[in-house]
Amino acid sequence: MSSTRNKPTLAVVGATGAVGTVMLDLLSTREDVWGEIRLIASPRSAGRRLRVRGEEVEVVALGEECFEGVDVAVFDVPDELSAQWAPVAAAKGAVAVDNSGAFRLDDDVPLVVPEVNAHAARVRPRGIIANPNCTTLSMIVAMGALHAEFGLSELIVSSYQAVSGAGQAGIDTLRDQISKVAGSTLGTQPGDVRRAVGDFGPFPAPMALNVVPWAGSLKDDGWSSEELKVRNESRKILGLPNLRVTATCVRVPVITTHSLTVHARFEREVTVAHAQEILRDAPGVVLYDNPAAGEFPTPADVVGTDPTWVGRVRRSMDDPTALELFVCGDNLRKGAALNTAQIAELVAADLG
Amino acid sequence: MSSTRNKPTLAVVGATGAVGTVMLDLLSTREDVWGEIRLIASPRSAGRRLRVRGEEVEVVALGEECFEGVDVAVFDVPDELSAQWAPVAAAKGAVAVDNSGAFRLDDDVPLVVPEVNAHAARVRPRGIIANPNCTTLSMIVAMGALHAEFGLSELIVSSYQAVSGAGQAGIDTLRDQISKVAGSTLGTQPGDVRRAVGDFGPFPAPMALNVVPWAGSLKDDGWSSEELKVRNESRKILGLPNLRVTATCVRVPVITTHSLTVHARFEREVTVAHAQEILRDAPGVVLYDNPAAGEFPTPADVVGTDPTWVGRVRRSMDDPTALELFVCGDNLRKGAALNTAQIAELVAADLG
Repeated sequence: MSSTRNKPTLAVVGATGAVGTVMLDLLSTREDVWGEIRLIASPRSAGRRLRVRGEEVEVVALGEECFEGVDVAVFDVPDELSAQWAPVAAAKGAVAVDNSGAFRLDDDVPLVVPEVNAHAARVRPRGIIANPNCTTLSMIVAMGALHAEFGLSELIVSSYQAVSGAGQAGIDTLRDQISKVAGSTLGTQPGDVRRAVGDFGPFPAPMALNVVPWAGSLKDDGWSSEELKVRNESRKILGLPNLRVTATCVRVPVITTHSLTVHARFEREVTVAHAQEILRDAPGVVLYDNPAAGEFPTPADVVGTDPTWVGRVRRSMDDPTALELFVCGDNLRKGAALNTAQIAELVAADLG
Repeated sequence: MSSTRNKPTLAVVGATGAVGTVMLDLLSTREDVWGEIRLIASPRSAGRRLRVRGEEVEVVALGEECFEGVDVAVFDVPDELSAQWAPVAAAKGAVAVDNSGAFRLDDDVPLVVPEVNAHAARVRPRGIIANPNCTTLSMIVAMGALHAEFGLSELIVSSYQAVSGAGQAGIDTLRDQISKVAGSTLGTQPGDVRRAVGDFGPFPAPMALNVVPWAGSLKDDGWSSEELKVRNESRKILGLPNLRVTATCVRVPVITTHSLTVHARFEREVTVAHAQEILRDAPGVVLYDNPAAGEFPTPADVVGTDPTWVGRVRRSMDDPTALELFVCGDNLRKGAALNTAQIAELVAADLG
């Protein structure tokens, strides 16, 4: 193990969850910049052994002593656990990279997407760096590239969000409901699907054979928390505090990978060809845009991949400064674990 | 049959199709304004007996003689058949009400939504009235009501379109694919659903556990025919030839009922309360908008109903003249057969 002696120590808090599982997969397949990797979870998961980098590692229970000697601690846990423990890790000298919503809008916590604002990760007065919400992350890399060229002035987005955004319970619920509607002629009478599926799990309505215009909790004036996250986080990441952003968030019966339609208005006139060129060259973006050949991204093809996929690039017929796009991104990878891993690697490179 | 002697004769062309079937159901449940109802279909369906108004009626083969003595002929057939036969019916003295795309943008053919522009049905130089596309119809009644109050200046819409918009083949394809993914852990690896479902039917990609940003055929500059229909038909119905309209059409794994997110900008400042009041009072519209109580429309609840359902009414945080809405409408009822039946009844009332 002498080769790891001078490499930084990483702690993964929430190693047994849906995002934590993808994180271990990424740590096993990406370039290995880490010395020790410590796996941390709730006391009831302590003692379990999980594979990472081809080796079994025993999970330890979350506690102050976990963070001794840790350089970077990534948190894939609910908001309230992050709010409590990320400052503890930071006090112990670790840089906390937090995937919850607890710190995203804190002025003293940078909100980082490495392809867009890597520089922001260097200024972290609280020792904490926040990872954006998965819906914002599903489009922001592409938007950042277009903003750098054309100057973004407005985003109007509608989401087609996967059930895994609501965690493993979301996945289990959709799979159970799909089994209940399979082989039936349901979906033609009011409420027939509602009655057949029974349990809605974490959702306010059936997800099988349905779409549900709600994600998160109710905020002022009828907005959902998810819609406000897209607005506030996009503004912070792009460094555009007055950017006009409107989102309507809708859950769809897809396991993993969020899609969004985007109406993006810019300060300057745009052309489709120029926008496609920018997107083709942008790190972390795949342009997949040839409808004549049936080429546009769909969640079924994008799931399990790292980049943000962009298709259906059109210029508004009414406004030469506006583009329409369809964007897909894996909400568990770039939308969560991958971006967190990238931030952790940025920090590790600075430590090195 | 003396009571029917002075009532107009109706012909239903395409009586055996997906929309025709809903039409017969509507004719059996709505107020009966018709004398004879003649059922017409392709020669291979001739001789079949279908139930309408509680009686069995024999289907006759499409031909010139079918339209003798017919007052109103509704066409639920593909574009090319309508293009050929609607003028034949008109030449025989019938008013043709056509649900295809063949005549919708013809300057001499009114495009009618009774709640919005009933007056337009009276001027029909070719003896033909066109019924709008189902996606346009899923939102236009609500938009017409808001336009009358606030003056519409722009629509930016994203659709969540049901598979029955692609006919019975669309329904059969999704049901088959759902059976193939049920009980599996598919939807987590690139292409796993694509490989499992095999046949895509009328769609360019899998529909189960997926969303597909494509409907219709490819037109200039990357737009789909469906997206241009929403633009051109909305302008014509609302009588606003320069209305700014941008649509992105996406197919979702729902059997029947199209949903749309709508960003609607008006000439005047709007309030949510005033917009809700307009929508609550609008004929053909149900306002279902109380997220605190889990109330917003979803296709699973709207399918099989007549109105346009509207929820998630919010005012843009950046623009006091813009509203965000989520709208659902049954694409086989108001989106096709119901609107056609309403137009036919309008004509019948004028004949009477």
